[in-house]
Amino acid sequence: MAEVRNKKVVLRDYVVGFPKESDMNTVEGRIILKVPEGSNDVLLKNLYLSCDPYMRILMNKVESIDVHRHYTPASPLAGYGVSKVVESAHSDYKRGDLVWGFTKWEEYSFVSSSQICFKIEHTDVPLSYYIGILGMPGLTAYGGFFDVSSPKKGDNVFVSAASGAVGHLVGQFAKLSACYVVGSAGSTEKVDLLKNKLGFDEAFNYKEEPDLNATLKRYFPEGIDIYFENVGGKTLDAVLPNMRLHGRIPVCGMISQYNLTQPEGITNLAHLIFQRLKMEGFITTDFFLLYPKFLEFVLPLIREGKIVYVEDIVEGIENGPAALVGLFSGRNVGKQVVVVAHE
Amino acid sequence: MAEVRNKKVVLRDYVVGFPKESDMNTVEGRIILKVPEGSNDVLLKNLYLSCDPYMRILMNKVESIDVHRHYTPASPLAGYGVSKVVESAHSDYKRGDLVWGFTKWEEYSFVSSSQICFKIEHTDVPLSYYIGILGMPGLTAYGGFFDVSSPKKGDNVFVSAASGAVGHLVGQFAKLSACYVVGSAGSTEKVDLLKNKLGFDEAFNYKEEPDLNATLKRYFPEGIDIYFENVGGKTLDAVLPNMRLHGRIPVCGMISQYNLTQPEGITNLAHLIFQRLKMEGFITTDFFLLYPKFLEFVLPLIREGKIVYVEDIVEGIENGPAALVGLFSGRNVGKQVVVVAHE
Repeated sequence: MAEVRNKKVVLRDYVVGFPKESDMNTVEGRIILKVPEGSNDVLLKNLYLSCDPYMRILMNKVESIDVHRHYTPASPLAGYGVSKVVESAHSDYKRGDLVWGFTKWEEYSFVSSSQICFKIEHTDVPLSYYIGILGMPGLTAYGGFFDVSSPKKGDNVFVSAASGAVGHLVGQFAKLSACYVVGSAGSTEKVDLLKNKLGFDEAFNYKEEPDLNATLKRYFPEGIDIYFENVGGKTLDAVLPNMRLHGRIPVCGMISQYNLTQPEGITNLAHLIFQRLKMEGFITTDFFLLYPKFLEFVLPLIREGKIVYVEDIVEGIENGPAALVGLFSGRNVGKQVVVVAHE
Repeated sequence: MAEVRNKKVVLRDYVVGFPKESDMNTVEGRIILKVPEGSNDVLLKNLYLSCDPYMRILMNKVESIDVHRHYTPASPLAGYGVSKVVESAHSDYKRGDLVWGFTKWEEYSFVSSSQICFKIEHTDVPLSYYIGILGMPGLTAYGGFFDVSSPKKGDNVFVSAASGAVGHLVGQFAKLSACYVVGSAGSTEKVDLLKNKLGFDEAFNYKEEPDLNATLKRYFPEGIDIYFENVGGKTLDAVLPNMRLHGRIPVCGMISQYNLTQPEGITNLAHLIFQRLKMEGFITTDFFLLYPKFLEFVLPLIREGKIVYVEDIVEGIENGPAALVGLFSGRNVGKQVVVVAHE
């Protein structure tokens, strides 16, 4: 029974406002690599951990989301990850299986089998993709765009946080659907990426646009059919009057609001009536039934180079806190990945 | 060619803030009861005019709704009405036909045939019902509840402005669908009506509830499945955290916001994601194809006394301005009707 080091990233205390690296600690524990007698759990070696905006909400003291358990001080963070099964007391999994699902920010984790989302069957693509284009963000982009937004050829699509893990896929899905696509992002570098590498028709740096309403009118003189919502706040308020009749607003995230003690008020919701808009929130788990269909759709696109997937990779679990915090200042370009181990 | 008096209610000037009776004038014109040579129009004698919250938006100087044309100073208001055809140059209509549609606030109106919504076929019910339960509010309640909200037996339904023209029908449709229904209204009299005459399970006077969030938790300890939105503002913000997973918010109106120069900000929209909610705006015209099916559904309910329909009737077009203004202080109980002529 090998006992080994188990480095973890734990929450120091509940977070108020913007998260800082110092809100988390990297600590060294020890773990016996053996599923305890009588348990039905699975022991995972975590390979890749995912940094996602919703994780900020789980750092609040007040419960405001019932999907995942909130983090508690002195306990490790949790989130999506790619892992290898070390030992399993559950018949669905065996040593050596690769899986993606909800794990903890540590080198090894005991998880209940219900926290594992899917076994990984295709390994001709990078394993880290299973916390990205082939995991939560990819499935979210796919379900949110195709299932919730009902896109039609020629639709005018606006994507905020467009160079982010979900956004840069939504834009490419929209181009594959023959839509006109404009993205907003927070730097010149990201705008260049969107226009020159990811095939967006247009992109702009929202930090350089003092009047977002005027900006949207410039890019969408005939209005927006689909607004893929990742940021909330002022952007959403500027978008609402610029939506076309029967427009759709799939609501994937509102990252601009997660660090605010008092969220910004949205004042233009009456446009839901004027233009008969539909706003709909969703999370990945709503689309799990679509996963096989999604893989059939997206794997050939990856293999044939018809979709570009951008990762921002840091090595070492001890660099996880900085990577996670970086999401909220927009430091990452594309999917923020933390490598715990390569195999 | 008879020339007769044509009393009209005209807008005095664009309105800012709460509308007042003095924002409108009743003036006497004259009209020749003859469709002009070469015209394709229909000449209507207006019988019943409808007072509706959306009319306030048409009094703004700034265009914010593209469905109906904004009112202009010195011109008559326009809105839904029940009318009798006096003369018609359009082959679909003939003298004596009863119709409901979009007409003007005057005794006689020339309208284009496209402004007429439907010919009235069933006259064993009061004609005024065609601006109410059998007209715009009825079809809105029906489409908004059955089509947009996808109600299921046992759903928890909350209706704001519940004694209003649309709200008191939604509550009864929900009871017919075996839902649990709670309504909010602005007076003890209205609360009594909802509970004792209209069959709501519960009702409360929102003016007497200082903490709406606590109120909603009291009436919906397990959360709300369907919130039929008529008021917007603080009510919507209190509802959002109290919605259940996959809840629906059909957005029919936001009367609390129409008189504000700066609408109240909604801060709880992130709950769209947490609980995966759907919000969807609509107006009557979206449901016109459902009208025959709606009549088949609702006419028997009316004839068999299985639905209660409440009207608040004033006589005389000159009393229209006071009736319309009354909507915004909640003076009306049920559908506010202005009688121009009985036949």
